[in-house]
Amino acid sequence: MTITEAREQLMALQRKMAAYDHAMGLIYYDGNTTAPKDTAANRAMSLSVLSEEMYKLSTSDETVALLEFLDANKDELDTHEKRMVYLLLKGIRDMQKIPMAEYIEYQELLVTADDVWHRAKEASDFEMFRPYLEKVFATARKFALYIEPDKDPYDHCLGDYEEGLTREACDEFFGKLRSEIVPLLKEVGAKPQVDDSIRHGFFPEDKQEELSYYLMDKIGLDLGHVGLSTTEHPFTTSLGSHFDERITTHYFTDDFVCSMYSVVHEGGHALYDTGSADDLAYTVLDGGVSMSIHESQSRFYENIIGRSRSFCRMIFPKLCELFPEHMEGRTAEEFYRAVNKAEPSLIRTESDELTYCLHIMIRYELEKRIFDGELEVRDLPAEWNRMYKEYLGIDVPDDKRGVLQDSHWASGLIGYFPSYALGNAYGAQFLAKMKETVDFDKCIESGDFGPVNDWNREHIWKHGSLYKPVELLETVMEGKFDPDYYINYLRGKCSDVYGL
Amino acid sequence: MTITEAREQLMALQRKMAAYDHAMGLIYYDGNTTAPKDTAANRAMSLSVLSEEMYKLSTSDETVALLEFLDANKDELDTHEKRMVYLLLKGIRDMQKIPMAEYIEYQELLVTADDVWHRAKEASDFEMFRPYLEKVFATARKFALYIEPDKDPYDHCLGDYEEGLTREACDEFFGKLRSEIVPLLKEVGAKPQVDDSIRHGFFPEDKQEELSYYLMDKIGLDLGHVGLSTTEHPFTTSLGSHFDERITTHYFTDDFVCSMYSVVHEGGHALYDTGSADDLAYTVLDGGVSMSIHESQSRFYENIIGRSRSFCRMIFPKLCELFPEHMEGRTAEEFYRAVNKAEPSLIRTESDELTYCLHIMIRYELEKRIFDGELEVRDLPAEWNRMYKEYLGIDVPDDKRGVLQDSHWASGLIGYFPSYALGNAYGAQFLAKMKETVDFDKCIESGDFGPVNDWNREHIWKHGSLYKPVELLETVMEGKFDPDYYINYLRGKCSDVYGL
Repeated sequence: MTITEAREQLMALQRKMAAYDHAMGLIYYDGNTTAPKDTAANRAMSLSVLSEEMYKLSTSDETVALLEFLDANKDELDTHEKRMVYLLLKGIRDMQKIPMAEYIEYQELLVTADDVWHRAKEASDFEMFRPYLEKVFATARKFALYIEPDKDPYDHCLGDYEEGLTREACDEFFGKLRSEIVPLLKEVGAKPQVDDSIRHGFFPEDKQEELSYYLMDKIGLDLGHVGLSTTEHPFTTSLGSHFDERITTHYFTDDFVCSMYSVVHEGGHALYDTGSADDLAYTVLDGGVSMSIHESQSRFYENIIGRSRSFCRMIFPKLCELFPEHMEGRTAEEFYRAVNKAEPSLIRTESDELTYCLHIMIRYELEKRIFDGELEVRDLPAEWNRMYKEYLGIDVPDDKRGVLQDSHWASGLIGYFPSYALGNAYGAQFLAKMKETVDFDKCIESGDFGPVNDWNREHIWKHGSLYKPVELLETVMEGKFDPDYYINYLRGKCSDVYGL
Repeated sequence: MTITEAREQLMALQRKMAAYDHAMGLIYYDGNTTAPKDTAANRAMSLSVLSEEMYKLSTSDETVALLEFLDANKDELDTHEKRMVYLLLKGIRDMQKIPMAEYIEYQELLVTADDVWHRAKEASDFEMFRPYLEKVFATARKFALYIEPDKDPYDHCLGDYEEGLTREACDEFFGKLRSEIVPLLKEVGAKPQVDDSIRHGFFPEDKQEELSYYLMDKIGLDLGHVGLSTTEHPFTTSLGSHFDERITTHYFTDDFVCSMYSVVHEGGHALYDTGSADDLAYTVLDGGVSMSIHESQSRFYENIIGRSRSFCRMIFPKLCELFPEHMEGRTAEEFYRAVNKAEPSLIRTESDELTYCLHIMIRYELEKRIFDGELEVRDLPAEWNRMYKEYLGIDVPDDKRGVLQDSHWASGLIGYFPSYALGNAYGAQFLAKMKETVDFDKCIESGDFGPVNDWNREHIWKHGSLYKPVELLETVMEGKFDPDYYINYLRGKCSDVYGL
């Protein structure tokens, strides 16, 4: 094999992997959006075959030989190719440590678990979901130990979503955050509460859908390549490459703000993915590099942009147009205050910026303790409820609004939640850098997202997964990650809204 | 390899093929229902990979050795397995005659052609579509000659959809049909035309959608396994197995009858597929055996049932409930007469039972002449329009309502159209047999589809592709196919509606 042939084969291999990703991603997406309700077993059957084929493709002797040959000749590769070979070899070496039958069984389990979770949530019946969740946790832990037998398995899971992240770093970050947020929340609680009646009423789905497309277009998504569907739990997925991206939302007719910010949040993910340089398509470098950087973008659009006074002023006329009776006599300032109301609540995805990270910390603590054998899955609901009382001071009325609210565990996403909190914190630091050259508030208020998106594209999006997260971060930040930016951001927001 | 191992491998092979079918079918379905508009190139990329993998899987040395081993030991196989081996070997032997690169290129072409056809139809611009259509026709002809070099290539295409069908048989069947239909149409034309104002008005999409689900449930589809979406051109597809079936429709707000009968037509396809015995799932025996038997079922539900007086009486109260203002003062009899109005028209899918086969004959003649080199693709629009004038006496105002109306050619379905006409004729003969034991009109009028569906399930659906079409037909009919049943059926309908 010549190096030229090997380089061509490297690209062909990745195109194949992208096609399998497309197929499996679409089967998952279809299951959540369009598929008739009793078809999960059929999807599980196909996914088990396709994941086996993908496994064979990515771990075959031929593939390993190709990558090792390229690795041995890496001086002749360009930057892109070097990173591809590194990521693919790492993936293979991890994969090879998992027995194929167990890997396939796990893929099947996840399809079933996701289906059962939907039903269990609907029925608010944790017991229905428990046996599946036990298997998901046990398998995730077992796989972590297969891959890194000498490492704490929960650290492995954290590192899966953010290269190099550890429980030590999380404990420190969350400790600092909690010590700042809890007193802030107390101060806010002592102030008169914000009137958020502007978000409550009756908002027909078709009008909310119109708002979704308006927002998608406004924040700069290319509607020719980014689709919108409705699901129980909003998510974003790329199909095959960043040339086909899907976001989803969930409409509540009594509160338009939920879906509105879901769209902007998922839209942030989609901007990041679709912002990859086009020559990264059909390679492992296509799309965002880590979950926390992904969340930094989604939560940047949702909160830092979406809950800013400028954004509220920009969008208010559209809200008046869509919901004229409801908005009569209201102001953009009322809307701004309503969407920044800080108050302990039950549902993470609907929570305000101030309490959001407390929701994350609860999940993080629970995951850690299950991994450490200190907590059994069957005791999760009681412990969940106890911690909501302790951290947020509220009573959880049922598992639907408690431990069953998130889809993550049903999809095997364990160690993922801290990414949201880290993403929040990264975003605040990015904002500070961005403001050095971009007139942020003016852009947002005038609805001209160009300069903001260009900054993100140049600094973050276009690189896809070319750089390690920490390299990318430190390049963008021109220094180390510093959670104080985020703490100051939260303080500023609370002072502004509550006059602390 | 023992025979037991080989039998297991036979099932595993088919499960894999079903998974690839699921993936590719879903990508196609998604492209027609949900995908953002500029994502066709991305789908083409993935489909080219997946069809290559499918090709390799089904023609690999290992697969051929397995099937030849089983074929050599067929005495030890059961009826199901024998038929699987026969169908799979036939598929491989056909496939092997097509060079892999050309096969893959054709799959890519079809994805692009389908996308271009959608745009060309919208713009009524045949020239946009022409280069793709030329390639589709040329490739279909070339592949026919690869597979059966000594056979007339158009006969090969016909046989692809109906084992053993030839242009000679079609010429005879269509000749007879035309000689009966044309005078009938003249007789009808001399009578006062039917008032079909009952179908015209304003019918909101959400009410039509409600009607769709009502009809699907009524005709006996299991909504847990059969989904509904909207597309430009209605179709039905199985995903992976008959456990996940999708039908589509297209709503016109000025005429609810179009979608109503699309749903019943596609519902007939879906009843046939989902009626396969469950142990046929994930094998090549799952689902309908040939296109014309498929069409016999879809058009049985659409016309023989759906356009019967009994059905019109059964559905009329629902129509009054959904469209109360419009239906005020109307009767079920008016509705029956309106949906049986016979009149030359432009669009095949909206045409009445009497003129329907004339639309098919035009397509059949055009395909034949292109294959024979007597007609160039660039001359298709003019020739299409000339034949519509000759056969139906009408002027085609634009290509959107002319040569661009059907999706079939864009999907490579050449030689498919005669199936519709044959299916019509089979259905009329099935009806005569069914009536020997089922009180057809009473069942339909009372909305009790059980006995009708049971008869079809027992005689046709449950067998999937276990029998050759002609075997199945002659078993059900207890004799040879006889188009006179259909001609008599058409005469009866025209006499009833027009009092001939």
